[in-house]
Amino acid sequence: MTSDPVFPLAAPVLTTEPDGFSLVLSGKLVLTHSAAAPCLFVGQGQERMEMYRGNFDIEDYVVERVALRHAAISGDVIDLSPSPSEPARLRLRVEGAALRFEALDPAINRLWLRVQAEAGEHVWGGGEQMSYFDMRGRRFPLWISEPGVGRDKTRELTFKADVAGRAGGDYYHTNYPQPTYLSSRRYALHVETPAYSVFDFRHEAFHEIEVWAVPERIEFFDASDFEGLVEQLSTRFGRQPPLPDWVYGGAIIGLKDGEKSFERLECIRAAGAAVSGLWCEDWVGLRHTSFGARLFWDWQANETRYPALRQRIAELRGEGIRFLGYVNPYLCADGPLFPKAEAAGYFARDAEGKTALVDFGEFDCGVVDFTNPAAADWFAEEVIGRNMLDFGLSGWMADFGEYLPVNVQLANGVDAKLMHNPWPTLWAEVNARAVASRGMTGEALFFMRAGFTGVGAHCPLLWGGDQSVDFSRHDGLVTVISGALSSGLLGNAYHHSDIGGYTSLFGNIRTPELIMRWAEMAAFTAVMRTHEGNRPRDNLQIDGDEAVLSHFARMTRLYVHLAPYLRSLSDEAVQRGLPVQRPLFLHFPGDRATYAIQDSYLYGRDLLVAPVWREGETSREVYLPEGADWEHVWSGERYEGGATIPVEAPLGRPPVFIRQGSVWMDLFRTLATL
Amino acid sequence: MTSDPVFPLAAPVLTTEPDGFSLVLSGKLVLTHSAAAPCLFVGQGQERMEMYRGNFDIEDYVVERVALRHAAISGDVIDLSPSPSEPARLRLRVEGAALRFEALDPAINRLWLRVQAEAGEHVWGGGEQMSYFDMRGRRFPLWISEPGVGRDKTRELTFKADVAGRAGGDYYHTNYPQPTYLSSRRYALHVETPAYSVFDFRHEAFHEIEVWAVPERIEFFDASDFEGLVEQLSTRFGRQPPLPDWVYGGAIIGLKDGEKSFERLECIRAAGAAVSGLWCEDWVGLRHTSFGARLFWDWQANETRYPALRQRIAELRGEGIRFLGYVNPYLCADGPLFPKAEAAGYFARDAEGKTALVDFGEFDCGVVDFTNPAAADWFAEEVIGRNMLDFGLSGWMADFGEYLPVNVQLANGVDAKLMHNPWPTLWAEVNARAVASRGMTGEALFFMRAGFTGVGAHCPLLWGGDQSVDFSRHDGLVTVISGALSSGLLGNAYHHSDIGGYTSLFGNIRTPELIMRWAEMAAFTAVMRTHEGNRPRDNLQIDGDEAVLSHFARMTRLYVHLAPYLRSLSDEAVQRGLPVQRPLFLHFPGDRATYAIQDSYLYGRDLLVAPVWREGETSREVYLPEGADWEHVWSGERYEGGATIPVEAPLGRPPVFIRQGSVWMDLFRTLATL
Repeated sequence: MTSDPVFPLAAPVLTTEPDGFSLVLSGKLVLTHSAAAPCLFVGQGQERMEMYRGNFDIEDYVVERVALRHAAISGDVIDLSPSPSEPARLRLRVEGAALRFEALDPAINRLWLRVQAEAGEHVWGGGEQMSYFDMRGRRFPLWISEPGVGRDKTRELTFKADVAGRAGGDYYHTNYPQPTYLSSRRYALHVETPAYSVFDFRHEAFHEIEVWAVPERIEFFDASDFEGLVEQLSTRFGRQPPLPDWVYGGAIIGLKDGEKSFERLECIRAAGAAVSGLWCEDWVGLRHTSFGARLFWDWQANETRYPALRQRIAELRGEGIRFLGYVNPYLCADGPLFPKAEAAGYFARDAEGKTALVDFGEFDCGVVDFTNPAAADWFAEEVIGRNMLDFGLSGWMADFGEYLPVNVQLANGVDAKLMHNPWPTLWAEVNARAVASRGMTGEALFFMRAGFTGVGAHCPLLWGGDQSVDFSRHDGLVTVISGALSSGLLGNAYHHSDIGGYTSLFGNIRTPELIMRWAEMAAFTAVMRTHEGNRPRDNLQIDGDEAVLSHFARMTRLYVHLAPYLRSLSDEAVQRGLPVQRPLFLHFPGDRATYAIQDSYLYGRDLLVAPVWREGETSREVYLPEGADWEHVWSGERYEGGATIPVEAPLGRPPVFIRQGSVWMDLFRTLATL
Repeated sequence: MTSDPVFPLAAPVLTTEPDGFSLVLSGKLVLTHSAAAPCLFVGQGQERMEMYRGNFDIEDYVVERVALRHAAISGDVIDLSPSPSEPARLRLRVEGAALRFEALDPAINRLWLRVQAEAGEHVWGGGEQMSYFDMRGRRFPLWISEPGVGRDKTRELTFKADVAGRAGGDYYHTNYPQPTYLSSRRYALHVETPAYSVFDFRHEAFHEIEVWAVPERIEFFDASDFEGLVEQLSTRFGRQPPLPDWVYGGAIIGLKDGEKSFERLECIRAAGAAVSGLWCEDWVGLRHTSFGARLFWDWQANETRYPALRQRIAELRGEGIRFLGYVNPYLCADGPLFPKAEAAGYFARDAEGKTALVDFGEFDCGVVDFTNPAAADWFAEEVIGRNMLDFGLSGWMADFGEYLPVNVQLANGVDAKLMHNPWPTLWAEVNARAVASRGMTGEALFFMRAGFTGVGAHCPLLWGGDQSVDFSRHDGLVTVISGALSSGLLGNAYHHSDIGGYTSLFGNIRTPELIMRWAEMAAFTAVMRTHEGNRPRDNLQIDGDEAVLSHFARMTRLYVHLAPYLRSLSDEAVQRGLPVQRPLFLHFPGDRATYAIQDSYLYGRDLLVAPVWREGETSREVYLPEGADWEHVWSGERYEGGATIPVEAPLGRPPVFIRQGSVWMDLFRTLATL
């Protein structure tokens, strides 16, 4: 799917031993193989995969799993077989900083690789992981899907979502998995494969990587510090452009209220909120189903719902406010674009060669086949280019990417099971190409929840997907931090989320406290954006309560106040690939107490943010890393790093600490006066 | 665990082929092996097993699974290896009607065997299977455990039981699994192993048997008809004695109300119920915990709760009513028997060599180690013999057997993981030995829910375990039929259940309808017995409602009226091993429409019983097998077999049909007058 990597890395050293081999990265043993303790297994599996609206039921029947105990080594080539008397089944080739794989036995469709592990080792990454930032001790299937509602099998909400639509999810479900991890041993590993894969970190002595194919390569990244690793990964997977200038002007307000959205925006601004954009996903109009109002999935402005929209966009622009919309990679069968795309042969096909229709709940859609260059060009030029950018949109939610059915026929002839994971990257590329075609890279801002290897080269901004509107451990506010940190380590510099969460099901609704806590966190991220959620009428909105609106407005002012600092972080992202939100250990690698922390983060190098993420709490414990002194932004109290401290954190005063000695001290200290 | 089988079977024919071998039973190909399509796989697994109060969380990490493609055959010995150049890892030996296994590679702890399967084939057995009688299309782990509450992951009840105590269960959870199945191809297969095993019937071309050890043997049973197969299996696994004469006198009434039980019994009799026994599980006294009253697990009569019990038992006996009690294989740490057993070294030990204590919910127990012959003798002689039989008990619930922790140290030195499954058979043997020592075999009646290979040789009566007090598909009334039919095919002739169900949790309580429907079914089984359930005070009892009691009394009279017929079935069980409750296909093998039916049964050869098992229904559809004419017992209407007919079935008129031509026609026809 991606071209070969080019990165100036020290190659791992291959050592041949009487009975096997070892691979060492700057003194770090990563692979070791002997007949008694083989590191490679191959075999055959027969998978069963069923999709229901983006949720997958996947089961594997492993027919064979054979240890390749015998290694025949010649230069940089290693041929592996079960025993010296049997023919080699797999060839490894050490190429630069990668191991290239070649199946010598075409029957192989499963591969397991054991990587050396150490006691106390931590591992992070795996794409955008919402439940567990440190993945050690657990097993992570890496397959793009809906993330799930509740994502915790002990919760009633998850149970109900499972029963209603197999939609409950679990800790490893994510819109954006990626077979890449960083180890606390100061190396990173990436599996270059489009196939279903699994990272199994449950074992003490090894990490086991499972791939439902023979992967193209395993790439190693080696550095003396974590920053160096992140820079390498960012170079490898793609670096984002700077944040658009207009974003620094305030929050992007998400409303889907038709023309009324403009009035509501005025009220929000009148309450003192700094606003950079108005995001109306219903710009395409609505469809009414038994589940409620849905968007009309045909990507052009809807005159009925938004009369004279082009004019309104221009007027807003005059006031310094951009307009954003919504698009996804489907076309509804009853919209005007569908017949055009079908006539041109742009859709994925079913087994009989007809347009494959996907049911999205009382309406069917065609899947635009991005492996067909003409279809991708058409979507970029005619749909996104003409209907959206030329129409005046400055950005959009580029939704979905997770639903490629595994049984469709694609133009490139590749098995859809091997295109399912790469799909979001293709989708991102179509969006990015459209933006580039108008010279608007770094100016138009689209945001995606779906991702896979290479998505960062095209997608300028991730959003954390559809959290439930609550404080829950596995589907609430706190999961957004883990998502930002894990994806950030893999080169996705910019992350943000729906303020107040999105999914309101089975009576779960937003509270004022939730919106306020979420806004407090969002002020210290790359982008502040609100969302009305899936059931706007049943849920509180930022303009639905005076205290909430006033609190929100203040948070937008904090965000704007920090713009110069955020701009410096964006510059750093462009130059080095460091993310805006960073795990504490990135800058405090010597403090191992920071390695498993996932509920606080560094906002750049100089601010530590510890959002209150449990309901009803007005204080929390915060660990301050050793090696710096920290100043509490609201009280000015100072603390020496290396300890957990209790912090008072009433609404409006999220725990934020300034690193002493920052060049931004004055800017930060002013926050308390806003 | 068991001695080698002796059964006069035609040996399977082993055919050697250029590239492998085949095993054929009377023209039925059961195994076929070639290098391209091997039927045997071996390897290593690392299991994780956690028990919480009889519920297990089990996961296997399969390190290797290697096809043994190469077969070297010499006479009846087959040596198998991955390839011709590698040493043999496994030896098979065709011995009579069995394949004997021998590991040549001691590292093997997993084995997978593929047995030929056909399209449209049905398979039954697997011990006592409560959810699916026909196992084709599903995978069945065979490991003794609690069966679960709800047993259906889409049910709220199951969800709550899972969250509260990992106790929800699933379709394959059972107190009595057994690695034995019968195929509609007219053969049966038994895996002789004490280890965890799995029957995987999901595949089209083969059944896959998985064993977490190298099994001792795979035994084949071959017959031209199903009756012949059942006779062989009954011979192989043990045949029960006849039902005690006293059982035919009526129902066994389960009460646990201390002395008040006697008064309540009088009222029940006064309402016209025919009663053969009074069963008081609280004869040992009570313990009060935060969960409510529990039995005191020290096995002797409790003077406080039942003053002068010996005298009362004698008085009841004078009225033709037997007294039954309760026992299980544990001793509570605060009872008087515990220190005696501990001093004698009769308990299983923990890793440090101390008595292993098992938490049963606010009280700890020792596990009597039945692999220690002295402990088994003591329990049989002193506990069951002296305290129960000599005291006057005519029977008891021999509860549990499912909870042997997998980490205890046993006297016979065998890994507890390999004693967990055989444990109920040891437990049954202790009970049977005690009964035999008093010459009371066929006279004293104990009943068990736990079972495994060989349990039928010792246990005279199964009970279907702890159904929920409802009509649910996977944990209600209907599951008892599947349990009776599956266990019956494996030689367990007598089965019965708790009238009204047992488990009342999370607000699930008995309705009058449930008790009445259950009693209607029980009248057409080997034994009618009531149970107050786990929460007697919250649930309706048979004597708690006039209509229920009157209905129950009538059902006991039907049962007694059928006693001569039931006695003939008991005779048939003793002579041929045919169960009292039989799947329709047992006598109608030519009618394939009967093969998957699990909600009706033949009660002996001449009655077809189709219990109403759905709530609120007053009629149901009944399939009448082809090859006989059938007379509806209540209306006298006649039907030709080979069709599904609708039947009116108000309370009190369960769908029962008489096979025309039965020698019992007159007896059956009189039922309608009672």
